[in-house]
Amino acid sequence: MIGVGVIGYGYWGPNLVRNIDEASASSVIMVSDLDTERLSKVRARYPLVKTMPDYRHLITDTTIDAVIIATPLPTHFDLALEALRAGKHVLVEKPFTETSEQAMRLIDEASRRNRVLMVDHTFVYSGAVRRIKELVMTDGLGSIYYYDSVRVNLGLFQHDVSVIWDLAVHDLSIMDYLLPMQPRFVSATGMSHVPRGSEDIAYLTLFFDGDLIAHVHVNWLAPVKLRRTLIGASCKMIVYDDLEPSEKVKVYDKGITLNNGEDKYRTLIGYRTGDMWAPQLDITEALRSEIDHFLDCIDHSQPPITSGEAGLRVVGILEAATQSVTRHGSPVEISYCTSRPVGITQKPRNL
Amino acid sequence: MIGVGVIGYGYWGPNLVRNIDEASASSVIMVSDLDTERLSKVRARYPLVKTMPDYRHLITDTTIDAVIIATPLPTHFDLALEALRAGKHVLVEKPFTETSEQAMRLIDEASRRNRVLMVDHTFVYSGAVRRIKELVMTDGLGSIYYYDSVRVNLGLFQHDVSVIWDLAVHDLSIMDYLLPMQPRFVSATGMSHVPRGSEDIAYLTLFFDGDLIAHVHVNWLAPVKLRRTLIGASCKMIVYDDLEPSEKVKVYDKGITLNNGEDKYRTLIGYRTGDMWAPQLDITEALRSEIDHFLDCIDHSQPPITSGEAGLRVVGILEAATQSVTRHGSPVEISYCTSRPVGITQKPRNL
Amino acid sequence: MIGVGVIGYGYWGPNLVRNIDEASASSVIMVSDLDTERLSKVRARYPLVKTMPDYRHLITDTTIDAVIIATPLPTHFDLALEALRAGKHVLVEKPFTETSEQAMRLIDEASRRNRVLMVDHTFVYSGAVRRIKELVMTDGLGSIYYYDSVRVNLGLFQHDVSVIWDLAVHDLSIMDYLLPMQPRFVSATGMSHVPRGSEDIAYLTLFFDGDLIAHVHVNWLAPVKLRRTLIGASCKMIVYDDLEPSEKVKVYDKGITLNNGEDKYRTLIGYRTGDMWAPQLDITEALRSEIDHFLDCIDHSQPPITSGEAGLRVVGILEAATQSVTRHGSPVEISYCTSRPVGITQKPRNL
Amino acid sequence: MIGVGVIGYGYWGPNLVRNIDEASASSVIMVSDLDTERLSKVRARYPLVKTMPDYRHLITDTTIDAVIIATPLPTHFDLALEALRAGKHVLVEKPFTETSEQAMRLIDEASRRNRVLMVDHTFVYSGAVRRIKELVMTDGLGSIYYYDSVRVNLGLFQHDVSVIWDLAVHDLSIMDYLLPMQPRFVSATGMSHVPRGSEDIAYLTLFFDGDLIAHVHVNWLAPVKLRRTLIGASCKMIVYDDLEPSEKVKVYDKGITLNNGEDKYRTLIGYRTGDMWAPQLDITEALRSEIDHFLDCIDHSQPPITSGEAGLRVVGILEAATQSVTRHGSPVEISYCTSRPVGITQKPRNL
Repeated sequence: MIGVGVIGYGYWGPNLVRNIDEASASSVIMVSDLDTERLSKVRARYPLVKTMPDYRHLITDTTIDAVIIATPLPTHFDLALEALRAGKHVLVEKPFTETSEQAMRLIDEASRRNRVLMVDHTFVYSGAVRRIKELVMTDGLGSIYYYDSVRVNLGLFQHDVSVIWDLAVHDLSIMDYLLPMQPRFVSATGMSHVPRGSEDIAYLTLFFDGDLIAHVHVNWLAPVKLRRTLIGASCKMIVYDDLEPSEKVKVYDKGITLNNGEDKYRTLIGYRTGDMWAPQLDITEALRSEIDHFLDCIDHSQPPITSGEAGLRVVGILEAATQSVTRHGSPVEISYCTSRPVGITQKPRNL
Repeated sequence: MIGVGVIGYGYWGPNLVRNIDEASASSVIMVSDLDTERLSKVRARYPLVKTMPDYRHLITDTTIDAVIIATPLPTHFDLALEALRAGKHVLVEKPFTETSEQAMRLIDEASRRNRVLMVDHTFVYSGAVRRIKELVMTDGLGSIYYYDSVRVNLGLFQHDVSVIWDLAVHDLSIMDYLLPMQPRFVSATGMSHVPRGSEDIAYLTLFFDGDLIAHVHVNWLAPVKLRRTLIGASCKMIVYDDLEPSEKVKVYDKGITLNNGEDKYRTLIGYRTGDMWAPQLDITEALRSEIDHFLDCIDHSQPPITSGEAGLRVVGILEAATQSVTRHGSPVEISYCTSRPVGITQKPRNL
Repeated sequence: MIGVGVIGYGYWGPNLVRNIDEASASSVIMVSDLDTERLSKVRARYPLVKTMPDYRHLITDTTIDAVIIATPLPTHFDLALEALRAGKHVLVEKPFTETSEQAMRLIDEASRRNRVLMVDHTFVYSGAVRRIKELVMTDGLGSIYYYDSVRVNLGLFQHDVSVIWDLAVHDLSIMDYLLPMQPRFVSATGMSHVPRGSEDIAYLTLFFDGDLIAHVHVNWLAPVKLRRTLIGASCKMIVYDDLEPSEKVKVYDKGITLNNGEDKYRTLIGYRTGDMWAPQLDITEALRSEIDHFLDCIDHSQPPITSGEAGLRVVGILEAATQSVTRHGSPVEISYCTSRPVGITQKPRNL
Repeated sequence: MIGVGVIGYGYWGPNLVRNIDEASASSVIMVSDLDTERLSKVRARYPLVKTMPDYRHLITDTTIDAVIIATPLPTHFDLALEALRAGKHVLVEKPFTETSEQAMRLIDEASRRNRVLMVDHTFVYSGAVRRIKELVMTDGLGSIYYYDSVRVNLGLFQHDVSVIWDLAVHDLSIMDYLLPMQPRFVSATGMSHVPRGSEDIAYLTLFFDGDLIAHVHVNWLAPVKLRRTLIGASCKMIVYDDLEPSEKVKVYDKGITLNNGEDKYRTLIGYRTGDMWAPQLDITEALRSEIDHFLDCIDHSQPPITSGEAGLRVVGILEAATQSVTRHGSPVEISYCTSRPVGITQKPRNL
């Protein structure tokens, strides 16, 4: 039984606590939050859980093996570092850290102490994304042409971060998991419509080696909620609509055929359309699978799928995109100064 | 009765001829096309229309008052210039010309000869876009925050032009009509997935004065057909889905409210949601309204809504976007070197 | 503070207990269920609530003012009767009772003892149905032509009741609230596809005075979930789709116009189409509004909207429909042998 | 080359003429209609086709091998009989005839003279319905539980026939083709909302041997257009939505599993959900496939799929349903007094 402490009981914290509570391999020992009203909610719902405003009691408690950090972004680094130094395994809510530098230091710290460091890239653990991963891995898709995602709705405006750090982080973490390579540079544009606010609408184009291109549209100011990703590839194409109640992933046997024929200067293009297929998906709550994976990685001393390195790669893109926005779309190179991995070096466990 | 000659009977030509034929104020006199098989189709369908491979007979025919050019883009300039010089009124299929320079020369020529020069920006004449224009003009929307359009499907790949010149031109011409100002610069990205092909997927961000931003996603390689535009504004928001059978335009009484309150450093954001409303739309075929407007402008010697100048503005953006794509999204200024208007100077007639 | 006891903690019980717990005017005192595992769930979630297998302790407890019955249908009558005799106010889950006879006896008992007797017709308290009621009452719809509802999905097969008593009861209770009159007779058809099972698919047509007609399609064996009601009227038409995330109610300005003109023998029919409008809806959970209404009726000694009489009317239709099914659709008269109301006689409180 | 004459150039006639014109095996020789304005439209569009108000010239013309009857229902019988007696092959628009008696007499006449007699049940020839037939025939569906169709929209009210004869005829003809057996009796209900009008809304339940049940909802007064059929079966379930632009047919691997287990009195029900699959469909226009089949049957002296007998079966159901409506849903037996087939007796040709 792994003892878990949760720091932060705001929007996401209650979901974390509920899933840890329901997992058979773990037990929530403590929850800390600066807001005492939230703590009283914890006690009403989980009478056996200890609550406290000061996270330090939690971090130093010896019955706690793992700490989950669900606080505002600016606090992630300090809390995670302190928890790692106290010898805890750590799961950090997305986005991982404010800077790549911070991400690298956490990775180093975890690595040196042989602790599991995981980032809460929840969508990676959803049935839909895991099913798409299988389609990508078994090569039925062919070579991927593009990844295009739209993630828009009205609100919730964040004060600390722009829509890129709040919403695009989801798409970037899914891409990090699904795509066979890393983007090289990013061109991003965006706009704020609130005085003293950061971008509430943004567009990111990611360039990879070869002819793969990715694009993300995120928007806090849209009249309708949309969560739709198109993945175009040479053999199959995918539409992933997270708002569909049952058929979230549709695989289209559609595409183009290229035929040079006798004409040296012109490629003849044909169109191919076939059946559409919506595979059944595992409907386990993504966060539940994620928590199980975190506990499993702790048990087996193995690196998680959404490791600190995955978090670092995503933060690297967020930094570059933020820079590009200030230059109206001028491309910015993404630096993956991944620190030398020490300690846990096995390949990530599968789900 | 205005005599009309049509050059080009490929994809779009039959629609033009049918609508001219059905309009009471005009009569199709001649159709020319290099492909004689197409001409035999014209004769089978319209026994009274003269057909010929050589467009020169058409341009010099004295019974013809107006010439419509529905040929591949590279021929637009020469044909239009020749027709104007022959004293004809001219309607040119979109995109208007290959370059701004060409567009300006045609505008000059038309202006000098006092002829109507119109560009076939068909969507501007649709019931949906005209209804949105009314919403914009009557100011019920408030100030516009963004214009976001997705126009994707599988095929038809064009040989002469990229997806930007083929599909984005629709969105740019709608924006030119709807938005209260012109974009200043553009950041565009794109990719080709066909050897020796031009871009089959592209993303354009347009920057305007103030906080208005526009974005266009065009794609020839999508598994599903999408035609959806979101318009966000301070008072209302619009979703325009051209594939909806009846409710193409939905107006949402949704938005944010800004409240500085006592906090100088932070704007408090509230959310407002109200009714949704789908106004009834004029279901006249857009091309029919457009042809009627063209004939009306000829009759009254007045400039059309989608004038040569509108065509020039759109071509200017297409040029800048094409440049930006080669630089991976670096912003490119849009130059509107609109030539001095001579001759027809009244304000455009309303529909 | 009204003390509430809940009998039955199966599918619906947890929702009831949660809403009573959250309502400020009430407090859950006791929960009883034959299944002790369910009771331990109650205690884990609500440490202050007393639990017991034997409902009799609950019914006789003096701290309890109101009893909510959420047990299988065959037990409703006995439990409700016993609770009323113990002087409790009673809320009974739908369907109210197995027979009209039982319903009348409960109404009499409640009336004699001046207790509130309410039936849990939850949908009546939803924002969508309440909004439609306003549209009907303000007469903007014109005279109603038909009410057509589809309520289908895969499962959950019930053992005690047919799909009519399980699903059609929702539509009948909504109609009882919305329509200006009661149906006179019913023609119903259905089929069972499970050995020894009752109907898993059924169709009910209800006949009213005049030209109003209603139809309900319920089905436990459908591959997709549908919850859609069409309401046709002389001035407006409504589509109510309960699965739409936000625009559940759409009002269409559509219809026919009748013109006798000079032709005595033939009515000329014209078609009218106008705007569509989706009014904003109150998104309070229906069950929450219902519990508040129950408590309010107890406080003010007033009859609820979904009174025992409403329950009786719905059970009367269910009985007639069940009879008609055995006769392959032969119409069966609906008898509303409503007992003389005694005691609480004011008109129902509005929400 | 088969010479074809078409009687009636109203709503459907132009589609028939266009398809016969485009078929390589046939040629439109004559079109007759009482309305001379319609005839002038024929001449403008098809300069080589002869037109005449009096159908008798058409029927007696020796260059005409086949006559297509696209006139109002009350004239079908006389025209078809006259054409058969003149030795023509005959295709009659749906519904076939006003009575079963008429249908039988036409079948006899065609049979005696060895002529092809076909009914224009167009949907049977659509790619969607043909694909569903394949699914039914290859037995992948399992045994069929129900067939449920909704076919509603606003207008077009017919003067001569009720909504049953106008719209339900489509569903009945599709069922006649798809289902493995004939219905035994029908319970139908409906209502007219127009003075002196026939039913504008109707519901039909069809009973078969065993536990198969079918239902059709047709409505001229609906605010939205719906064309959706659910087919439930023991192994697979189908949703056929004719308004879907591309995936009209969806096959769901869903259903129930029955398990008697140890309990003699109760069948345990499990639920099974799997992938969904939308097979690619032949997108040939249904009417084009139908005309080709008609010509092919003439060429090979073989009975068509939608033979006079199929027309008779459908008319038999329409008669019984009409009777049932007057009795508010009382079931009416369907009599299939199919006359002895003489002459063409081979089994229908496949498409």
